[in-house]
Formats: sequence, C-alpha cells, structure tokens
Amino acid sequence: MNSTEYSADRRDIQFVQKELFPMDQLADLEAFKDFSPDDFAMVVSEGIQFAETVFGSINVSGDQEGTHLVDGKVVTAKGFAEAWKAYSESGWMGMNNDPKWGGQGLPRGITVGVQEALFGANPALYVTAMLTSGSAGLITTFGDDEQNQLFSTKMISGEWGGTMCLSEPNAGSAVGDITTSAKKSEDGSHYKIKGTKQWISGGDHDMAENIIHLVLARIEGAPPGPKGISLFIVPKRRLDDQGNPAEDNDVTTVRVEHKLGIKASPTCVLEFGTNDDCHGYLLEGEQRGLAQMFKLMNEARLTVAYQGLGSGSGAYRNALAYARERVQGIPIEQGKDQSAPRASIVLHPDVRRDLMTMKAIVEGVRGLIYGVSYYGDMAHFGPEETKGYYSDLVDILTPVAKNAGADNGYEVVRLGIQVLGGVGYTEEFPLAQTLRDTKIASIYEGTTGIQALDLVTRKLTLRGGEMYQTLLKEFNTLTPDQAKTATTRQAIESWQEHVESLSATVASLGNLATELGPREGVFNATEVTVFFGDVCSAYYLLKSAVIAEQRLEELLGSAEADREKARENEEARFYFNKVKTAEHYTYQILPRGWAVAAKVRSRNFAALDALLEE
Amino acid sequence: MNSTEYSADRRDIQFVQKELFPMDQLADLEAFKDFSPDDFAMVVSEGIQFAETVFGSINVSGDQEGTHLVDGKVVTAKGFAEAWKAYSESGWMGMNNDPKWGGQGLPRGITVGVQEALFGANPALYVTAMLTSGSAGLITTFGDDEQNQLFSTKMISGEWGGTMCLSEPNAGSAVGDITTSAKKSEDGSHYKIKGTKQWISGGDHDMAENIIHLVLARIEGAPPGPKGISLFIVPKRRLDDQGNPAEDNDVTTVRVEHKLGIKASPTCVLEFGTNDDCHGYLLEGEQRGLAQMFKLMNEARLTVAYQGLGSGSGAYRNALAYARERVQGIPIEQGKDQSAPRASIVLHPDVRRDLMTMKAIVEGVRGLIYGVSYYGDMAHFGPEETKGYYSDLVDILTPVAKNAGADNGYEVVRLGIQVLGGVGYTEEFPLAQTLRDTKIASIYEGTTGIQALDLVTRKLTLRGGEMYQTLLKEFNTLTPDQAKTATTRQAIESWQEHVESLSATVASLGNLATELGPREGVFNATEVTVFFGDVCSAYYLLKSAVIAEQRLEELLGSAEADREKARENEEARFYFNKVKTAEHYTYQILPRGWAVAAKVRSRNFAALDALLEE
Repeated sequence: MNSTEYSADRRDIQFVQKELFPMDQLADLEAFKDFSPDDFAMVVSEGIQFAETVFGSINVSGDQEGTHLVDGKVVTAKGFAEAWKAYSESGWMGMNNDPKWGGQGLPRGITVGVQEALFGANPALYVTAMLTSGSAGLITTFGDDEQNQLFSTKMISGEWGGTMCLSEPNAGSAVGDITTSAKKSEDGSHYKIKGTKQWISGGDHDMAENIIHLVLARIEGAPPGPKGISLFIVPKRRLDDQGNPAEDNDVTTVRVEHKLGIKASPTCVLEFGTNDDCHGYLLEGEQRGLAQMFKLMNEARLTVAYQGLGSGSGAYRNALAYARERVQGIPIEQGKDQSAPRASIVLHPDVRRDLMTMKAIVEGVRGLIYGVSYYGDMAHFGPEETKGYYSDLVDILTPVAKNAGADNGYEVVRLGIQVLGGVGYTEEFPLAQTLRDTKIASIYEGTTGIQALDLVTRKLTLRGGEMYQTLLKEFNTLTPDQAKTATTRQAIESWQEHVESLSATVASLGNLATELGPREGVFNATEVTVFFGDVCSAYYLLKSAVIAEQRLEELLGSAEADREKARENEEARFYFNKVKTAEHYTYQILPRGWAVAAKVRSRNFAALDALLEE
Repeated sequence: MNSTEYSADRRDIQFVQKELFPMDQLADLEAFKDFSPDDFAMVVSEGIQFAETVFGSINVSGDQEGTHLVDGKVVTAKGFAEAWKAYSESGWMGMNNDPKWGGQGLPRGITVGVQEALFGANPALYVTAMLTSGSAGLITTFGDDEQNQLFSTKMISGEWGGTMCLSEPNAGSAVGDITTSAKKSEDGSHYKIKGTKQWISGGDHDMAENIIHLVLARIEGAPPGPKGISLFIVPKRRLDDQGNPAEDNDVTTVRVEHKLGIKASPTCVLEFGTNDDCHGYLLEGEQRGLAQMFKLMNEARLTVAYQGLGSGSGAYRNALAYARERVQGIPIEQGKDQSAPRASIVLHPDVRRDLMTMKAIVEGVRGLIYGVSYYGDMAHFGPEETKGYYSDLVDILTPVAKNAGADNGYEVVRLGIQVLGGVGYTEEFPLAQTLRDTKIASIYEGTTGIQALDLVTRKLTLRGGEMYQTLLKEFNTLTPDQAKTATTRQAIESWQEHVESLSATVASLGNLATELGPREGVFNATEVTVFFGDVCSAYYLLKSAVIAEQRLEELLGSAEADREKARENEEARFYFNKVKTAEHYTYQILPRGWAVAAKVRSRNFAALDALLEE
C-alpha cells in the first residue's frame, strides 16, 4: 500500500466474502459445482494481482494519452491492446459468462473481488471490457445457438468487443423516445438499421478485430414509446462464411467525446446506416428490446457501483499511506510547545476523522455491493425456496447500490484529496485522476436521479411494497443481543432507530404521492435513496462488528476491544478496526438520515412552485 | 444567460448590495466620500462586463493551453498578458488599494460584485491578479514610504506582479515550521534570503516585468515556531537607481505544478538564494511576519470564498439555461401517455430540486460573503461605536465564509454536472472545467480543516466566546413577526430552532474540550463549520424573503405570493423566487444541521481510537 499506486484491500475483501457472507458455500450449488472454495480464493487473488499490475501500470499513461479518432478509427492508448489481450487470454473476459459458450461461469459474489480491483486499477480500460462481457451475456441469454456460435463465443474470448447502444442525441434518460429504425430486408435475412447512437462506451477501438453492437431500434410500424423497441445484434464488420470479420457494416464513428475523465475509454457517437447498408440481426423476437436490455442494464449498473467502490477503496489506501508518511505540525494535545516532535498527519483529529469516514463508507458500500452480487447468485442458482427472497433483495437494492457506489465512491475520493492537501490537487498523485474518472459513475447506466426514480416509483410500490418488507426481514436478522459489548449493542439499537425512520419515510413518500401527486411523491427520491444506502451500509458494518467481536474474543480472550492489546497482532488490529468502523458509521455518518427524514416530513415543495422555467 | 458561457447574476448582486445590505450608505463614510451610490453601481456593472468579456473569453483556451516552464521562465497562455494589461490599465488591479499609492480605495462590499465575476469568468487568471493586489495592500499597510514608492505603486498599477510565499515542502498547514532563512548583509542594506517555497500562485509569469514576492523567513537566531518569523519584500529582479527592474535577484523557478484545475495559473516552486545572492527587504520590523501575513491571509481566504461563489453562480446559470433548453421525457404527472408532449427537463421534479438547491446555496452564500465584505468595510471605516461589532462578525465569519464559499461552490458545480448529465461530463460544456478549477478553493489559503480549527479553537473561545454572542445579536435582528405571510413566518421559526441547536452544539464543543481533551473538542470542527455556514446562509435568505414579501406587496398588492400573478412581471418573478428560495433552503438544506448536532451529541470518537497509524 502506498500513496501513489492502486492496491486492493485483499484482507477486507476476504472478510466480506468468507466471514460476512458465506460465499464458500456457493461451491455447493449445482451451477458452481466445478469450483471449490480454494478455487474462489485463487480467482480473487490472481485477479487482483492481474488488475494491480497489468491494468494498473497503464492507468496514468492512458489518461495522459487518451483516445483519438484517426481517419475514422479509434486509436487507444499505448499498452491497452496488449492488456486487453492478456486479460482475454487469461480468461478474465469470460469470468461470469456461460461455460456453454466459453465462459468461466463463476459466481458474481466471487468475481466482484476482481472487478472492484479492475475498476480501481484502470476504470477506462475496464469499462470497455465489462460491457463486452455483459453484452455477450445478453446474447447467451436471449440469442439462438447460431448467434452464440457466431458472436458471443468471440466476445467471451475477447477476440471481439461488445457495446450496448441505447442513447441517442434526443433520447438519453428517456430511452423510450429513440428513433433508430430497423427495416426487414426483402429476403428476410436481416434488418436494415438506421440511426445515431450517443455515449457508446467502447463504441470503436483497436483492441479487438470486430465489435458487436447491441442496438435498440424500432421496427417500422412498431408503436411509440418503450414498448415498441427491439434489440439487434449489429457487428461493426460483417462476417464471412467462416464467421470471420469481413467488410464494414456501414457503422461510422462520428465523434469521440472529450471527457473530464476515463479519457482512455472511447466514448463514441456512432452512426448506423449512413449508406442505408447496415445489417442487424434481431435478438429473440420483436419488441422485447427494452426488457432484454434491462437485464444487461441491471448488471451494468451494479457493475458501476463496483467502479465507485474500487476507486473509493484505492483512494482511501492512497490517502492512508500518505497520512502515515507525511509529517506536519504539532499534535493538538501538545498545545504550542515548539519543542514537541512533529506528528504524522494521521494523528491529527481532523485527518483521522476524514480517513475513518473514507474507510467506513468504503467498507459499508463493500458490504452492500458484495451482498447484492451474492444475492444475485442465490436468486439465480440457489435453492428454489429462497429464490424469491434473494430476488427481491437484488431488485430493491440494485438502484440503491448503484448510487451508493457511485456517489459515495466519489465523495471518498474528494475526501482523499482533502487529506493530501496541495499534492492531492496535482496530477503527480493519483487522486486527481481518480476524481475525474469516478465522476462518470453517477451519470452512466442511469444517472443518480434515474436510479432514485426506479427505487421510489417502481421498487417501493410494485406488489404493494413487498420488496421493502423483504428488506426489513433481512434487517431483522441483526439484533442488539448478538453484540458481545455494550458499545456495539447500543450501536445496533441506534441503527434500528434509523431503520424505523426509514420505514416512516418510505410510508410518507407513498402518502405524498397519493395525497398531493406524483411530483411530490418523487421530490426527495434521490435523498431517500441515499438514506437507503446508508442504512444498508450500517447494517453490513454492524453485522461485521458482531463477527469481529467474536474473533477478538478468540484472539485476545475478550471482545471488549483493548487498543493496546489489539495493536500487537495484525489480525486483532483488523477486527478491532472493524468494530470501530461500524461505530464511526453509526454515529458519524448515519445521522444524515435524520436530515432526509426531516426534509420529507417538512412537505415543503417550494422548488416545484418556483418560477424557474422562464 | 446560456449553458456554455459564464455570466454573472447582476440582478441578485444588485439586490444583495442595495436591498439586503444598505451598501449605498457606504458613500456617506469619510473613507468613501469621493464615491456616490451611482459610482458604486457603475463600478459593479462595468466590472462584471469586463469579467464576462475580457476574462471570460480566454478561460477555456487558458485551461487547454496551461502554463509552461520554458528555459526557467513561466510562459502563460495566449491572451493572458493582454488581459492582465487591460485589467491593470482600467484600474481594476487597484480597486481596493490605498488611493495614496494609486489605488481606487473602493469598499470591499462593492467590489465583491466584480470579484465574484472575475473568479467566475476566469479563476486561473484572477488568482494571480488578486494576490498582486493583496500583497500590494500588505506593503501599503506595513511598509514605509520608500517601499511603497518602489514596490506597491508598481503592483497597484499592474506593471508588476505580487505573491505571498508561505509554504515550504515541509511546512504547509504548519507554517510555523518554515526554515527559509534571512541574514542581514554586512552593510545592513538588505537581508540575504535562502530557502525553497512551494505552492506559490503566480510565482513566475510573463504578464508583468517584475514580481514582488512577500516571503516569510526566519532571521538567523530568531526563535523557532510561528513567533520567530519575519516578512520580507523580495523582488524577482532587483531595482536600479531609477527603480526600474534590473538584474535577476537569484530567485529560481524550480517547477510549475501539474494541477487538476486552474491550469493557466502558474503554481510554482521557487528557490530563493540558490547562489547565496537573493536580496530581501524587511517589512516593518523583525518577527512580525506571521501577524502581517495573517492580514493578507484573512483577505485572501475571504477572496477564495468569492471564487467558490463565482464558480457556483456561473454553474447554476449554465445548468438552468441547459435545463430550460433540453427536452427529454414525459412529465411524471402524465404517466406513461406516449402522446404527451415531451418536457424541458427543468419541469422534472428531480432536476428542479437540484436547480433550486444550487440557487439556494449560491444565494445564501452570496448573502454571507457580501455580508462579511460589507462588515469589513464597517469595521475599518464605519462609525467608531459599531467597529467592534462588525469586527467580531468579520472575525468569526471569515473561516465560515471561506468554507461555505469553497465547499458549497464545489457542491453546486457537482450538482450542475448532474443536471447536464452526459454532456456535463464532457469538456464541451464549461462545468467539467469549473469542477476542476473550483476544487482548489477548499485547499489553498488554508484547507477546509484548517479553517474549521480556526473557528473552533480560536474564534469560538477567544474572549470567552464573545464573538459568538455578537453573531447571535446579529441573528436576533431577524424575527418571525417581520414576515408578511404564515409561510415565511414559520420558516423563520424553523430557522430559529436551528440557531438554538447551533448554540447547543457550540456549548457541547466547549464541554468536550474541557471534559475529554482538545482532540475530542475539535473532532467535529469541520462539520460544525458547515452548520455555521448553513445557519448564516439561511439567515440572509430569510432576511431577503422578508424584503421580497414587502416588494411583492408593492408590486402585486399582496405578499401572499401568487405564482400566476408573479409570472407576468419580471421583477415580481425575482421576488417570488426569492421567497421560495428561502423556503427551500430552510426545509431542504438546513436540516443537515440536525445531523451535525446529532454527531456531536453522540460523543463517539471511534476514529480517534482506531488503529490507523500502523
């Protein structure tokens, strides 16, 4: 761990996967029967190693070089094509994909340990790789055998890239308004695609010999709005009889965006069918496009949460290392005694506070995000009788996790810059780039506001609010009596008050919608989503504290954590800090929930009244 | 107002200067007797015009080009030298400086209207100009006539630049630890300066023919720590007998930092006396350096607050313009009716909320910052009997305003990017640069944490907490009965509860320090400073609402603001929105104070306990 390079928090990842969640037991499931717990551990360890070295070594240079559109083709930064190849050849591209088509078929609860590190080490590169795996997964789920043989196998092997093409210049958040059209060819062998797509991550690049676009379009005559949308496989280059890339398929890269961050990721404007000669192949059936794409979107937005987590975790470790090294000023308890030895800034209360806030946010979000990933495995592949339970948790927590990862990750990086001070503002240290890179997480795969609308207008209302009841059931597995110390017991009690406040707030939103209307019902949606995220993070941290107290008792003979005794032993330090982290979260971060509750209770909608529109 | 260029909020600035504060009456003071209220208005209007055009036109290009060290000299971006010249020749450089040495001697309460715009239009350029005026002011305050004739007149005219040189590689926040030395020459005509200074804004550049550095150094034999520090005038080039720049004074530019933002501002590492031949001239007397520098620092940190305000205000106006133009999605109250006309995003509740939060923060901070500037004029030049009152307000509110401006400004820009969505993340729109530029405000002139320590350990404790009592006196001038409507009356009552909560929190901090120790006493300092800022912002907004209700009554016959009636009339719209802004702040922003109060009440110091140091 140092202040200038990314490293993953292997110890905490191990804790979350093995102690907080029983992920080793995933190996008992039929779907994962080819793996052992040791395999899981090896995958995570080697994946992190790969991320830190291969991906990490070209993160800064990639940012400096960026991507460029040269003669209509995107040229990526030095070393990116080689890293892509190494990533693909080591099998990482297909880590979650269906083994039937060449994937590893690993559980997401396990691979998140690798993905967090890939995002932390090089978000610009990983976003393109991640979308390739994801779009391949969409084809394996909905495509026929021929489509899989032709396309997804090549994407899973990393020979080809993949994209998702939703947004258009006039249809961003409102994806139902897309105008890209598809017209069946006379011989029925394909559709002709025509339209412009924007914000296409990995829309063109030189890391793979072909790129398979998954394009939302409206078949001529289909109804307006979201329901009329179908999904097409549109290769950049058509395939010859052997399935090899042949002539161009009339897909033009119009522009590469100049962005604040993830500069080495080519974000493209693509024009399909400039010459009316762009072939697309329907996936599964007509007018199922949005539902299909939502499968990928749901995965992708959880993966964006990984990005915030990876960046935040890396930033915390950079800042902690810096704060230990950097000597500055006299400790406040020494007063103005000029002869006092100067202190590492980690000892100054303000800096410690910031560091602990960073740690608590990162580890709380890690619990939440790994949890949702694990719940996803259980929902798909676990015992039949608990599938509904886990599926509810995944559904309600996906928008929560996306915002918690994206926005908290960004906030952690911001705090890291404060810890570093002046050097944090320079590009000599990594946090400036990390800040720029991480900002995207609150925008792509649905902005923070869009996630909040999904939570409040869909997840909290569908099936009479049953998903929230499932979440409460999960929360109820944590009780004060599980604590071995008064401190942790009180912290759990304090958290329970916040759960009650959250429930009251959720009820208020429903009342507002009914009594006043939909605008008032969603007015505080974004902040309520933050509230959800905080309560969840605290839940996972307090569960962790309960486990940590058990371990401390085993290690030191008492759960009453003794600082001096814990100090001697690396493992005891880890668990001691885990307990402190849960406390800090409960008393120093969670209280912002009181503010959200008060805002909703105020029923003040001055912002809706104000004359802002003219 | 548009989404891609900076423009100042002339109407709101006028409101704050003329209606919220009686700044026209500054013309009645002896110090400002040469000005009329019309002069003030003209200065602000022309200054804004100058900022928007001359400074604004080279903001983006300056960012793209940056500054470069070429053969030991700093080369600034295209157009910067010309803008500097125009700025100087129009008299803006000396707007606040002493008329005796060529300045305009305008009140700061007035010129903040210009300075906000200069920062909003081009922070990278203005920071160098601002420090030139400031360091000239330091010489006019403490220097002798010869020093003023030689140095400050040339700085006030903008022929020469000026810097403040505090930080060293191992003495940043802990300025008392500087090691730069000064040794009297044998003939007693000067001191020999030796040492390295870091983070020197405008440390070298080609916009002026000489640069006058104000350098903190320790005269050989002086005591360690802050008390032993003296301040020296150190020109980049020595002066010949006519006072013109002659040979180099052994000041070397070692490096220009590569920063996240304000890239066109040369932030230098300077080495003084590489060849033991750097001449410095003592300002006023030995060992007064830190007190002198604090005069400049106090001005400079308030000016940094202007930066956050200017950037935030510009970002709000860019985002508002964009939200009016950008059509996307169906209004939520139309449900899923695909035939409904699509709406400007300003109509979507989530976007309106963000915009109103931006507006409320900007206008609240404007009240606070213009207030402190005006109080400074009254403290220096007002009637003798109120000088102490205003001086207390300036002292206690300066760190509050610095953080409120810097951190809230940054938060407003972040929200602006969310409003713009994808395009906000590109460098095609100005907010990405503004985000990068504004981040520095929380770091330079004392980080957010350092300001908080100043508030909590000095301003709240000196003289038995008298400054806080003065602030309460000021708060007490706002009472619920001043409101003309029940809504505003209730909002003032709600704000009063927060004032009580703030007072309780301040008392708690004192108790913590006494009972537990200094570390616990400052643990929540940063958040308490935010709480102060919020309560102050709400104070100025609610005072504004009281005034606005009066105007609405005059304009529309009733203070009960009627949206449809107000809509017709531009002035009524302004006042109607002012009332709504105060409401929004009170009920949707101020509640975060509850969280701060709860954190302090929790008395949880897990972060101090945690084993972070190893």
